[in-house]
Amino acid sequence: MGRARSLPQPVIAEIIAVGSELLLGGRTDSNSLFITDELSTLGIEVRFKSVVGDDRADIVRALKTAVARAEIIVMTGGLGPTVDDCTREAIADAAGRKLGRRKEAFEAMQKRLAQWGRSPNKGQLRQALIPTGATVVPNPVGSAPGFWLSWRGTLLISLPGVPAEMAAMMRESVVPALASRLKERGRTPQPIRRQVFHTWGISEADVDAKLQGLIPKKASVDLGLLASPLGVLVSLTTKPLNSTAAETWASLSESVRACLHEWIFAEGPETMEEVVGRLLIKDKHTLALAESCTGGLIGHRLTQVPGSSAYVDRGIICYSNHAKIDLLGVPADLIERHGAVSAEVAAAMAKGVRERSGVSIGLSVTGIAGPGGATATKPVGLVYVGLNADNGETVTREHRFHGDRSVIKQRSSQAALDLLRRWLLNGCR
Amino acid sequence: MGRARSLPQPVIAEIIAVGSELLLGGRTDSNSLFITDELSTLGIEVRFKSVVGDDRADIVRALKTAVARAEIIVMTGGLGPTVDDCTREAIADAAGRKLGRRKEAFEAMQKRLAQWGRSPNKGQLRQALIPTGATVVPNPVGSAPGFWLSWRGTLLISLPGVPAEMAAMMRESVVPALASRLKERGRTPQPIRRQVFHTWGISEADVDAKLQGLIPKKASVDLGLLASPLGVLVSLTTKPLNSTAAETWASLSESVRACLHEWIFAEGPETMEEVVGRLLIKDKHTLALAESCTGGLIGHRLTQVPGSSAYVDRGIICYSNHAKIDLLGVPADLIERHGAVSAEVAAAMAKGVRERSGVSIGLSVTGIAGPGGATATKPVGLVYVGLNADNGETVTREHRFHGDRSVIKQRSSQAALDLLRRWLLNGCR
Repeated sequence: MGRARSLPQPVIAEIIAVGSELLLGGRTDSNSLFITDELSTLGIEVRFKSVVGDDRADIVRALKTAVARAEIIVMTGGLGPTVDDCTREAIADAAGRKLGRRKEAFEAMQKRLAQWGRSPNKGQLRQALIPTGATVVPNPVGSAPGFWLSWRGTLLISLPGVPAEMAAMMRESVVPALASRLKERGRTPQPIRRQVFHTWGISEADVDAKLQGLIPKKASVDLGLLASPLGVLVSLTTKPLNSTAAETWASLSESVRACLHEWIFAEGPETMEEVVGRLLIKDKHTLALAESCTGGLIGHRLTQVPGSSAYVDRGIICYSNHAKIDLLGVPADLIERHGAVSAEVAAAMAKGVRERSGVSIGLSVTGIAGPGGATATKPVGLVYVGLNADNGETVTREHRFHGDRSVIKQRSSQAALDLLRRWLLNGCR
Repeated sequence: MGRARSLPQPVIAEIIAVGSELLLGGRTDSNSLFITDELSTLGIEVRFKSVVGDDRADIVRALKTAVARAEIIVMTGGLGPTVDDCTREAIADAAGRKLGRRKEAFEAMQKRLAQWGRSPNKGQLRQALIPTGATVVPNPVGSAPGFWLSWRGTLLISLPGVPAEMAAMMRESVVPALASRLKERGRTPQPIRRQVFHTWGISEADVDAKLQGLIPKKASVDLGLLASPLGVLVSLTTKPLNSTAAETWASLSESVRACLHEWIFAEGPETMEEVVGRLLIKDKHTLALAESCTGGLIGHRLTQVPGSSAYVDRGIICYSNHAKIDLLGVPADLIERHGAVSAEVAAAMAKGVRERSGVSIGLSVTGIAGPGGATATKPVGLVYVGLNADNGETVTREHRFHGDRSVIKQRSSQAALDLLRRWLLNGCR
């Protein structure tokens, strides 16, 4: 961070994630999204991310590449107690430092392990080895300390790969320290602003067409679109160092909102299940579910939200026709006449589950998730969602989804929750 | 791939994933695990992975780094029809090529769009631009073609970022072409062998202790451990170019299996829900679920498996005590005496759901997922799982899990499915 003060320059960061499991499969790296978010609050822009295995020479190569293009390097992983873990050795190699046991690191580890009734083993002793000249970053959650050091004008930060430890160390030590270093050096970029809109029920191509020309070139704001089975995510991100005034930003946000309001179900980090939960609590509703093709996914999603026991009374996963008849009172002849995958049966399921449980709203899904189960008239992906409320209202919707079994289940759960959301917004009580 | 033939050298690959959304949040890159797996069947080792945003200069930098350290570069993303997508321009810049409309790419795209009743728009026309000297990789799923080219002795392959398109192009074109190129050049490394064991019910530290000293140094096999809420994954991976004989490999596999057989629930890509489904079908069992704290997650997991309607009859998500009494016939005074989170209630839930649905096995979970709901004697993470079978057997297990709500739900679902798996393996009929 010792570069020219006169001209404002973006503060460029690189993330290096160390771990053979990240390359070989079994796990994708989720730490870097968290780090990117935290750094963006300081106006620091993550421009590169690298993943390397637990190989000392490869880590050195990645470090040398990073130091040439980034002012801040955040490394995660490879600080554990096993022989595989060689991040600290690789940093010492690359930056030409020696490793030595650091008193404060050793004592903190000893104290932590003593709380757990243990004393450091041989591997854990290695974790107190810190490169010369580096500053220890305490670990408030686990036993492995992190550290940072200055190298060729770049600040190199090394943290454990365990998400909870990395997150606590970023929030408690790294972000405050970076903020004060940037300030000292007169490098205080604007925070990178980011606004996210979650839409459902409109394709990526249609979102693209609707937003065409909405963002003037000079606004220096990036528009991002990202399609997933749960809808299209639309994001506005300021370019670092830009001068987009607060009112321009607000008016751009408002334009996107106005353009897509019919499809936006949430802004920011809120999920569909959180939005629905909030609306249910607001109007003191209680909910019962009747799930066929989603197999419990709607219940699972709703109960991910702390406090959901206040409004989720029960759910019936009625995979068999027998269960639909037996547990929900769907008339057997209705299934015979229309088929289990029909608007009529979706309506009867919602009504049945509501009446039998004594809640205010029943929500249902019936459909063909595939790959089997299709008929001449009912293809894989045909899904009906239904809602029945204690004011006597019944609503059903037909959907024709594409994708594999997992995608169709996800889309079906989203369609059901969105039906409920819309009803709650426009609804009664 | 034009390097020395005399000495066997590992074939090193690098993956470059392009896309601002991969850096800024909203999505982690899952394509690279697939690519790594595919390349390992050819003995090609992915040693580096880089992620860059949709920035032409940054992509050029990443390419220049990669070409200096990898013999094969697989890029994904940035080939779409929008202005953001600049991978082809960056490749042309880096490798000093011109972009021109390629007839076969244009015609294939025209044909694909015609099937969908459309003709290429301006953005899609850009997708037919291919660097001079590059070979087009047809896209059997979508409209964007990929391509590959030789550059400074490295083979650079560029594919779309859409997972289904990338996967089809890897399998149908890239892997066969790489295989024949390697063969032509006398570079035919051994496939990288990888064996994965999934364990449940044992900690990472205990797995580590049990496997201590099991792998002789000269075996040149890497042992990997990875903990997740669903258990500890243990992997054996051969180092490329190693000469680990088939019998050594088999005996190492057998040693791990023997050492951990009590906890291994699956090998290879099989999931717990697939294992359980296979065992249920084998013995012609039918299953009903009674889920409290998992909220539908067990049902969701079981019904992710195609064909699960053959054994999943129904599930009851009984969040309220009322629902437990009403739908499962759990005696109200049992809940009063022992509390809803107790072995007694877990047993009664499993029995109730089995008897009322007429299936052969009932499986139940009741617990405190948190963050609320704990009492002086019952902490967050206390979970009971129960099983009741039509031979009169009842089994329950107590667990004390750590973690947030989502982790406790996942662990609870795994504990219930593992109880069922063990019962099916040892069980009756």
